[in-house]
Amino acid sequence: MADERGGRGRPRGRRPAGEDTRATLLAAARVEFTERGFDSATVRAIAQRAGVDPAMVNHWFGGKDGLFVAAMEIPVDPGRIVHRILDGDPERSAEWILRTFLSAWDADGGGALTALLRSVASHEGAARMMRELIGRVIFGRVVSSVAPDQLELRASLCGTQIAGLAMIRYVIRLEPLASADHNTVVTAIAPTLQRYLTGVL
Amino acid sequence: MADERGGRGRPRGRRPAGEDTRATLLAAARVEFTERGFDSATVRAIAQRAGVDPAMVNHWFGGKDGLFVAAMEIPVDPGRIVHRILDGDPERSAEWILRTFLSAWDADGGGALTALLRSVASHEGAARMMRELIGRVIFGRVVSSVAPDQLELRASLCGTQIAGLAMIRYVIRLEPLASADHNTVVTAIAPTLQRYLTGVL
Repeated sequence: MADERGGRGRPRGRRPAGEDTRATLLAAARVEFTERGFDSATVRAIAQRAGVDPAMVNHWFGGKDGLFVAAMEIPVDPGRIVHRILDGDPERSAEWILRTFLSAWDADGGGALTALLRSVASHEGAARMMRELIGRVIFGRVVSSVAPDQLELRASLCGTQIAGLAMIRYVIRLEPLASADHNTVVTAIAPTLQRYLTGVL
Repeated sequence: MADERGGRGRPRGRRPAGEDTRATLLAAARVEFTERGFDSATVRAIAQRAGVDPAMVNHWFGGKDGLFVAAMEIPVDPGRIVHRILDGDPERSAEWILRTFLSAWDADGGGALTALLRSVASHEGAARMMRELIGRVIFGRVVSSVAPDQLELRASLCGTQIAGLAMIRYVIRLEPLASADHNTVVTAIAPTLQRYLTGVL
């Protein structure tokens, strides 16, 4: 395990315990992915920056993809969203999805999200990851749990509204949306997202 | 004209010809708008930085708004959009706006747009320019020409849908929206944009 092997004989002389190893890898990954983009950042360089064995990336994140998702703090667990949507009223799923994203993004003032969007705009590797995240991991699963038809179109339409809200609220910071409370945002945008999920297109 | 008067007796001793004047003004405008923002940047200061007569701003760009739009390489002329919307049915304005953006973006395969979004995600100066562009120059004017109330909220909501479409179609390139024809995009998204413009929020 990391805490047994990680620090032995390393220049820094530290032996991070399990969660420390994970956190150190995440911090190192954020720097490397942001500076180099997804393709150029290597597991080896990230591990070296973190001062741990490269095998720890597989151990904690299952590989570079998993490390990317975790490092970018994609703040939403798609499995949990799907579970919650299946438990509730499908016609209110948009509201719940919006509140989930807003709470996660606002938790750090949009900092992680801004880093993510910067990476996506700059690096094809990150754009590809985002494409798969939105198309399959997040909205793909959500949409297939509630939508009547046109699953891929619905998933990509949901992507436009969520990505656009993220851009305007946190990156471009256009008022009044930049500082609007969650109820205001939900009242304005949930009907759009709901139509993309379950409405007539 | 610029090429007759522009350089005479100026410290730099150059006499830019027409297209040079235009390019020099654009470069100067990018610096001034980025450093000072739209409101504080003056035509006089931009012309001075470019080493040309302030009248050249009107001559080449029709004024400060036009210079700003050109400096941002926004392919859409807000004055023309507003004019067209006022001439037509306000309830179809969303469709026309979407078609205008799609045609302009598609003209170069989204290249200029991707560069713009990259710039916005990376530089506060560019984010600020985009904020003013969306909030006032483009949707500010469009919204004030058709919307019944809540002008600023409507402008920023329009911004979410347009920015999100741009991100998904050209940067993240999520299918089917990435290669959908204009009719498909308009059918799916115009109702959202129309609600943000003139509907019940």
